[in-house]
Amino acid sequence: MYNHSELKEIIDKALLNLSYNTEAVKLIEPVKYILSIGGKRLRPVMALMACNLFSDKIDNAVLPAAGLEVFHNFTLVHDDIMDQAPVRRNFPTVHNKWDLNQAILSGDVMAFLANECFLQTPANYLLRVFRIFNKAAIEVCTGQQLDMDYEKAAIVSHDEYLRMIELKTAVLIAASLKTGALIGGSDDGNADLLYEFGRNLGLAFQIQDDMLDIWGNTKVFGKAPGGDIVANKKTFPMVKAMEIASGSQLKQLQEQLSLRDNDPEEKVKRIISLYNQLNIREITEKLANEYIDRAFSLLEKVSVEYKRKKELENIASSLIGRDR
Amino acid sequence: MYNHSELKEIIDKALLNLSYNTEAVKLIEPVKYILSIGGKRLRPVMALMACNLFSDKIDNAVLPAAGLEVFHNFTLVHDDIMDQAPVRRNFPTVHNKWDLNQAILSGDVMAFLANECFLQTPANYLLRVFRIFNKAAIEVCTGQQLDMDYEKAAIVSHDEYLRMIELKTAVLIAASLKTGALIGGSDDGNADLLYEFGRNLGLAFQIQDDMLDIWGNTKVFGKAPGGDIVANKKTFPMVKAMEIASGSQLKQLQEQLSLRDNDPEEKVKRIISLYNQLNIREITEKLANEYIDRAFSLLEKVSVEYKRKKELENIASSLIGRDR
Repeated sequence: MYNHSELKEIIDKALLNLSYNTEAVKLIEPVKYILSIGGKRLRPVMALMACNLFSDKIDNAVLPAAGLEVFHNFTLVHDDIMDQAPVRRNFPTVHNKWDLNQAILSGDVMAFLANECFLQTPANYLLRVFRIFNKAAIEVCTGQQLDMDYEKAAIVSHDEYLRMIELKTAVLIAASLKTGALIGGSDDGNADLLYEFGRNLGLAFQIQDDMLDIWGNTKVFGKAPGGDIVANKKTFPMVKAMEIASGSQLKQLQEQLSLRDNDPEEKVKRIISLYNQLNIREITEKLANEYIDRAFSLLEKVSVEYKRKKELENIASSLIGRDR
Repeated sequence: MYNHSELKEIIDKALLNLSYNTEAVKLIEPVKYILSIGGKRLRPVMALMACNLFSDKIDNAVLPAAGLEVFHNFTLVHDDIMDQAPVRRNFPTVHNKWDLNQAILSGDVMAFLANECFLQTPANYLLRVFRIFNKAAIEVCTGQQLDMDYEKAAIVSHDEYLRMIELKTAVLIAASLKTGALIGGSDDGNADLLYEFGRNLGLAFQIQDDMLDIWGNTKVFGKAPGGDIVANKKTFPMVKAMEIASGSQLKQLQEQLSLRDNDPEEKVKRIISLYNQLNIREITEKLANEYIDRAFSLLEKVSVEYKRKKELENIASSLIGRDR
């Protein structure tokens, strides 16, 4: 069994050793940059952990796992353009450090570099894994579209919000676990349980991410706080606040949402104050915890020895800042 | 044997019937739009023609051929952003009709929709074809990068220019022919001859495309003339003019290139006048014709009956406006 830090090292090394079959140095500089400025390697590490549940040999899962990370970083590069985000993991975003065109193009090539990772893995499970990955990739794009749509929508329902984050965040974590499990030799039943474990964990993770944007620490989190508020993003806290606010609180909330060019700091301050009045933080934490509980109970059902699941359990716990 | 218009119809139908496994309507609208506003379907039609050289049954090649067209249109959507092009095939470009973010995201999903086409084709040749496609995709990104680099470069050599258009345009045509041939049951030798045929044809095609931007007819061509000149693109005419101009002509050329915010129409007029003084049109046509001759001689070497090659010969001839 490999532990978390061993797996992260394996992934970091695989990403560092990726071969870039291109003569355009400038095309690859931002790729190396975004892959080098940190990140938890959550998806590939979890893919390897899932593989390691069923097999002591994880070599076959390393390239597809790296492909999942390359794909994830591709979405970050393009999402940061769309969100006009200046900072990612405490470093300038690609479009900020280079420019728009470079961020589009270097992002694009990462989609095909991710393919390349999948295409280099042994043929016997390649196709199945590639299909799961590609389905998730289309779903991630769909989730980003819904996210953009909802920024402009007057009202977003609780269910719409959850479906959006499921697509945007949870399915890729789920797909990472499922592909890792299959490469490790898992049967469909266990692979699907791990998919569902990842989906629930991903939902919790995204809800927590929404909270971090509001109540997180910039230094730890690496993004300027309140970015989602300034962008009028329909995060879970916002969706929930719109649902339960009434009277003057609802009016104030709607007023803040309708202001687009006012002082952003003031807007963040006023909306957080409304969230606090409406107990939004507690409600949001409760929902995240429900997903976490569901995730852990799904992991329990995976039919491998308990001790083999310890690393997955730990990473899930650390993701949500919970000790088990 | 299928003729050109039958194959185009097969591809148009396949593209119309593509399944979009996504609930985000807005994500797919620009995809349907860019795939519906015409285009010659050059790459997929040539893929099917190459398949049809070796096999009367071409069904297995239809989905990968459609994938090649989806990929090609993905590059158009993103290239049009990078070039700030307002018009494509006489229609507004995606970022112009929608907006930047929509064009980025709908372009992105097309990369995975292209994957989906490849992943749905029969397994026995899927991997080989996918590897050829993905290599070409990375090369196309590399070509676009070099194109952008060369816009900023003071001098671009003849060889650099040709390598850039080889990557940006020729390799995808080449890969289309090779993948079609392999699916049709071709051996490696013939598939490689067709790749080289496509590469040379693609080079000629791109050189002609550079000429159309300058001496073409907007109505026929669907783009505003002189766009490449305004963008300081190092097209073959520009590269050649920089190479052979001297004295006051070189000085005028450099002066025009250094002006970035002046009257674009005036710039186009002055540079075309210099091209005319330097016989650039004739020189450029001569080079294109050399590649065409090489392409035809490669096609002759493909070891199938002459009559089976007629459709490929015709499409190549029509591409370069030459009757054979």
